[in-house]
Amino acid sequence: MPKKFKTIVEYDGSNYHGWQFQPDQPTVQGELERALEKIFHIRIPVYGAGRTDAGVHASGQVAHLIAAWKHPVGNFQKALNSILPDNICIKDLSEADADFHARHSAISKIYQYQILNQESRAPLKQRFSWHVSRPLSVAKLDEASNYLIGAHDFASFGSPTSGTTSTVREIYQAGWEKGHEDQMLVFTICGSGFLRYMVRSLVGTLIQVGLGKITVRDFQGILACCDRSKSGPTAPPQGLCLVSVQY
Amino acid sequence: MPKKFKTIVEYDGSNYHGWQFQPDQPTVQGELERALEKIFHIRIPVYGAGRTDAGVHASGQVAHLIAAWKHPVGNFQKALNSILPDNICIKDLSEADADFHARHSAISKIYQYQILNQESRAPLKQRFSWHVSRPLSVAKLDEASNYLIGAHDFASFGSPTSGTTSTVREIYQAGWEKGHEDQMLVFTICGSGFLRYMVRSLVGTLIQVGLGKITVRDFQGILACCDRSKSGPTAPPQGLCLVSVQY
Repeated sequence: MPKKFKTIVEYDGSNYHGWQFQPDQPTVQGELERALEKIFHIRIPVYGAGRTDAGVHASGQVAHLIAAWKHPVGNFQKALNSILPDNICIKDLSEADADFHARHSAISKIYQYQILNQESRAPLKQRFSWHVSRPLSVAKLDEASNYLIGAHDFASFGSPTSGTTSTVREIYQAGWEKGHEDQMLVFTICGSGFLRYMVRSLVGTLIQVGLGKITVRDFQGILACCDRSKSGPTAPPQGLCLVSVQY
Repeated sequence: MPKKFKTIVEYDGSNYHGWQFQPDQPTVQGELERALEKIFHIRIPVYGAGRTDAGVHASGQVAHLIAAWKHPVGNFQKALNSILPDNICIKDLSEADADFHARHSAISKIYQYQILNQESRAPLKQRFSWHVSRPLSVAKLDEASNYLIGAHDFASFGSPTSGTTSTVREIYQAGWEKGHEDQMLVFTICGSGFLRYMVRSLVGTLIQVGLGKITVRDFQGILACCDRSKSGPTAPPQGLCLVSVQY
């Protein structure tokens, strides 16, 4: 009797063309489905909570799948991890209610974006951060980020994901803090959902504020105008990580 | 008029066959000498403080070189960094006394070794740590490490580097602490110098103590017997980082 399973997945996205399956490119979903096929000898689809883009990482992506696993659930996790490549790991696997859906059941998601703010680049940190060499004002970054909280039309910062048309999302939390190392700035954002490229577009535009290239008021104007062409450059993918999904 | 320069180099060693130049393999020294050749159109040798092995990282390797650079020294650093690949960076470059030698003038070196001690592997941390899935006793690791402090013959843990025959080294500091994340254990060791594979061999043997496979007294015996065949397995390279060199 097939059962539904919920999994929490961590991956280093550096070498993947994103989460979503593509026939000719390595993807995280593709690797998971290939591992499942090795175990069950049939194709089993995996549904992720969100489609992370090429080069984006996850420490807490959530996905569900339906499979006829008869043994203890811990063995299922071990079996998958023994097949998956080193840069993908099933952190948790549990049986889920029949109506659970990784994307539709999600209440909120948390993303983090790491910026290395120092003059010199840093080979040991570049894989998981964006290097911004000119000094950033954390006070200004925080001030601008405060305007994100609440329900807004984020059309300036992204396009709807497939299956949706609205560009309104609610942000519950958004702020900056210093990381373990002094020069690392970490942006944490929690929201009901995110448009395609939204976090990276927000970060890219916030950095313009932090560098003093635009004012906090300019940032408010960009948010209010709902014009995709008005946002700053999209921040690069390697600084972004899907941290967790709440249900 | 050629001058002597001291540089501090950071690198992600994952894709290199170590520090030392090899004609047919990518090495850190090779990349540095290639960058210098692009600037000066002649071959300029680079002398490192220590020869890190394949896959070992450095946040503070030191090297010296002699070059006829006529412009401000900051421009020399920028010129090198603009040529070097992303995984190598000159963190600092300054003029040095004529008798300075990166290896011979060094008084001590600090290495760190990171161990991820949790059941599940972690794709976001594997590049810079060794994953040990069974629980380690930090108290035992620390107790055994204390016996390293002082001058000892470390023949059980490595072979002399080229140009030396003695296997006696002095260790000034050796200890374990929890990293920023709870599951990361960081071993820091400061010594007058290190034999080839010494830190990784020490860590591999200390882990046997931390796992309870051998006792602290066994570890003392291995240190005392000066027999290379008695040490535990050599810990893998990606957990090791040359942090700094003192002069």
